[in-house]
Amino acid sequence: MSEARIHNARMRDLVVSAEAAAALIQPGETVAMSGFTGSGYPKAVPVALAQRIETAHSAGQEFKINLLTGASTAPELDGALAKAEGLALRMPFQTDPDARKRINAGELDYIDIHLSHVAQHVWFGFYGDIDTAVVEVSSILEDGSLVPSTSVGNNKTWLDLAKKVIIEVNDWQPEDVLGMHDVYYGTALPPHRKPIPLVNANDRIGQTTLKVDPSKIVAVVHTHGPDRNSPFKAIDNDSKLIAAHLIDFLKHEVSKGRLPANLLPLQSGVGNIPNAVLAGLAESGFRGLTAFTEVIQDGMLDLLKSGVLDYASCTGFALSPEANEEFKHNIKFYRERIIMRTQEISNHPELVRRLGCIGMNGMIEADLYGNVNSTHVMGSRIMNGIGGSGDFTRNGFLSTFLSPSLAKGGDISAIVPMVSHVDHTEHDVSIIVTEQGLADLRGLAPRKRARVVIDNCAHPDFRDALNDYFERAMRDGYGRHTPHLLDESLSWHQRYIKTGSMKP
Amino acid sequence: MSEARIHNARMRDLVVSAEAAAALIQPGETVAMSGFTGSGYPKAVPVALAQRIETAHSAGQEFKINLLTGASTAPELDGALAKAEGLALRMPFQTDPDARKRINAGELDYIDIHLSHVAQHVWFGFYGDIDTAVVEVSSILEDGSLVPSTSVGNNKTWLDLAKKVIIEVNDWQPEDVLGMHDVYYGTALPPHRKPIPLVNANDRIGQTTLKVDPSKIVAVVHTHGPDRNSPFKAIDNDSKLIAAHLIDFLKHEVSKGRLPANLLPLQSGVGNIPNAVLAGLAESGFRGLTAFTEVIQDGMLDLLKSGVLDYASCTGFALSPEANEEFKHNIKFYRERIIMRTQEISNHPELVRRLGCIGMNGMIEADLYGNVNSTHVMGSRIMNGIGGSGDFTRNGFLSTFLSPSLAKGGDISAIVPMVSHVDHTEHDVSIIVTEQGLADLRGLAPRKRARVVIDNCAHPDFRDALNDYFERAMRDGYGRHTPHLLDESLSWHQRYIKTGSMKP
Repeated sequence: MSEARIHNARMRDLVVSAEAAAALIQPGETVAMSGFTGSGYPKAVPVALAQRIETAHSAGQEFKINLLTGASTAPELDGALAKAEGLALRMPFQTDPDARKRINAGELDYIDIHLSHVAQHVWFGFYGDIDTAVVEVSSILEDGSLVPSTSVGNNKTWLDLAKKVIIEVNDWQPEDVLGMHDVYYGTALPPHRKPIPLVNANDRIGQTTLKVDPSKIVAVVHTHGPDRNSPFKAIDNDSKLIAAHLIDFLKHEVSKGRLPANLLPLQSGVGNIPNAVLAGLAESGFRGLTAFTEVIQDGMLDLLKSGVLDYASCTGFALSPEANEEFKHNIKFYRERIIMRTQEISNHPELVRRLGCIGMNGMIEADLYGNVNSTHVMGSRIMNGIGGSGDFTRNGFLSTFLSPSLAKGGDISAIVPMVSHVDHTEHDVSIIVTEQGLADLRGLAPRKRARVVIDNCAHPDFRDALNDYFERAMRDGYGRHTPHLLDESLSWHQRYIKTGSMKP
Repeated sequence: MSEARIHNARMRDLVVSAEAAAALIQPGETVAMSGFTGSGYPKAVPVALAQRIETAHSAGQEFKINLLTGASTAPELDGALAKAEGLALRMPFQTDPDARKRINAGELDYIDIHLSHVAQHVWFGFYGDIDTAVVEVSSILEDGSLVPSTSVGNNKTWLDLAKKVIIEVNDWQPEDVLGMHDVYYGTALPPHRKPIPLVNANDRIGQTTLKVDPSKIVAVVHTHGPDRNSPFKAIDNDSKLIAAHLIDFLKHEVSKGRLPANLLPLQSGVGNIPNAVLAGLAESGFRGLTAFTEVIQDGMLDLLKSGVLDYASCTGFALSPEANEEFKHNIKFYRERIIMRTQEISNHPELVRRLGCIGMNGMIEADLYGNVNSTHVMGSRIMNGIGGSGDFTRNGFLSTFLSPSLAKGGDISAIVPMVSHVDHTEHDVSIIVTEQGLADLRGLAPRKRARVVIDNCAHPDFRDALNDYFERAMRDGYGRHTPHLLDESLSWHQRYIKTGSMKP
């Protein structure tokens, strides 16, 4: 029973049903919820709110909210509210298929911003007032402080800024997670900001709980439900090849003295390829690795367990059901090796640069000159969002982008003449890896980048066409710094839209 | 006589002619020179080197170098070496017409990177060894330490890393500049980095001189020559309107409580429009302003003199001849109000974010969704480079981009359906200003951005065509998150290339 997780008498008095809590949220509100990559999001109030919105709509009443979170959530949150047509604005990241459909249909406004910018932009007043915060915790302590569950995200900011607060106490979450978090309360608005006193990825600079003004709490709701623990796919051959290319490269950098033997703190995006890289690292011979990243997924737990990884800093989890069981079962082991921070800190440019993180992120496509599209299919349809990839790409020691060279059964090339949307500019991208090989763009002018991207990363099915484009652009383009033929540069995407294939 | 500026006996013994110094630079070397925005660059050795290269070429010998600087220099450096066809690689920024011509002809490799990345990427080993540093100073002190002249740029890094060092002592530069610099020696490579202890734009965290290992100095050269002090154009009406829109907006933000009454530290790009903004600020009623910027130009000296600006931090100057006279004449006044730093510090993401800078930069074009092109004409021809604009745009409190809505006598629209190159992504751009008005993109999803960009910033000559594109893209595009018609999105640029005008 969740009652046992509420050690503060006043908070116990505030326990209500999810429906009663959802009734406190009014149409037009800006609602800030917990949740990062499917971990630590509220499980019950959003569903009850969606039902309330559906009822209102059936009665002909308008009811939409602006929804802010840490990052992506789950069907019970984004999915339910999107299906109910209850969202006017969504920020800053999401991965839900129903929400995506509505965004791409022009029915839902979506603002896709750097995860390190979210908290400060809200503090700056760029998003107006936060009416309600809905935050999942694993327990409430006697003094009323809150023990976060499996993500911290923007919860500190939401609790600080919201006019009213709804707490979900989820007793499915491990109570022993207490002590794993590090919530930094030293942020401020300019001109009052100070250096963030973190110099190692495992430094503790904050406190283990979240503060909240008790007078703002309007409801406490019991829940008992799992995070969105999606399974990872078995590691396929392309992912293995990508991981091998990247690990070879890292070893090469160590051998040249450009990286320490235990590398620098790793940041890893979420997905099957990053998971393959983590699995590859387990067998790589590297020891004493560290991570300063957003999300811990299965492969990172394995690395901690095997002792290859000394410790990891994150703001949330993305675990398969099996890995979640392992995490809960050995939480005391992991609590000594994992620190969960606010996403303002996990992604902070100051810290990513100071620590010299090695960024490893997926992409949709890259072009000849090293521009990367992480978000848009054929320039217009959002897939997920930029998330924290820009924070690490711009500010880290190295930025690497990983993708198979082909998608859609070979109809799409991940290497294109010109990307159809730019999330990471040529100024920011160091390394591109596909199963074909690795392109090291450091110290190369655009024309030279084109050669290594084509030769090392493009799939043979598209290599001749890329060479042909580049050579003609060199001959006939308007300039030879970044040679392009603008009447052809996006023609591969146009062809895909028309024919279903980038192939001629 | 420059002799009087060399207070160290050993250094006096090393004085040679520029020709003799240039003879110490070998073909194929990576040569790192001082210079930032036409200030503080070496005046004599590059010219002598260019002559040596020309002589070698006449004799059928290969002779090219890789050239690294702080930022742009002058005809005596970039111009001379480009004309001599003496450059194989140029990094990280330049504005010289001869060099630009060769870059765009595909004859010279140019790497255009964030100015905050340069020093660390060289320290990381991404550019190999630095064979020779050529650094202008205003004097050499008795203990052998160097007093920088009118820019600091990457000089600390060049002196630390170069195998051999050539010093130019320029007695045209004011000797009283001693005390104006603040050279921070607390940087390190990851994993040994520490917080940078700067919390106000005028904090001093370093020393006033540059250190150099005396055993590395191979030559000292006397010079007596001015910086590239180019005059600014008289402020035209468009610039006045742009400045007025921006200043109105800043006042509005103060009135809403989102900015302090004395704003936050200003960063200003170089050029006639930023100069107009600075002139506008002089008459705006603002007081107690501060600047944390790369370059101080005429308008900022005026603001300091009138007491509107309390102090300014920079790494270089861009002054007209008259402003330079004023600067030299009243250098004791300015020395109390200006701090010159290394460009690693002037542009550091950690500091730009901590201080909450207000970035004000020019652009070539912006698109409907807030992507900005700062560098490429028609997607292929480099104009100058990204410089430090990305450092401030990504990390500051606000990023503003300023441009007239038209160029080339009305044949080019600065607002286009899709930019032909992206330097600042939709995730980073807050404010776009033309003489037509100001588009505030904060908190807006892409479709809403399009409306305000068209309505507020586009020139009426192009507004109907932009609306027409946007409406058809909403109807027929592949997705409605960022609606585009890929067969038309770059057609305005194609038309300009073919006909000399973006107009149909």
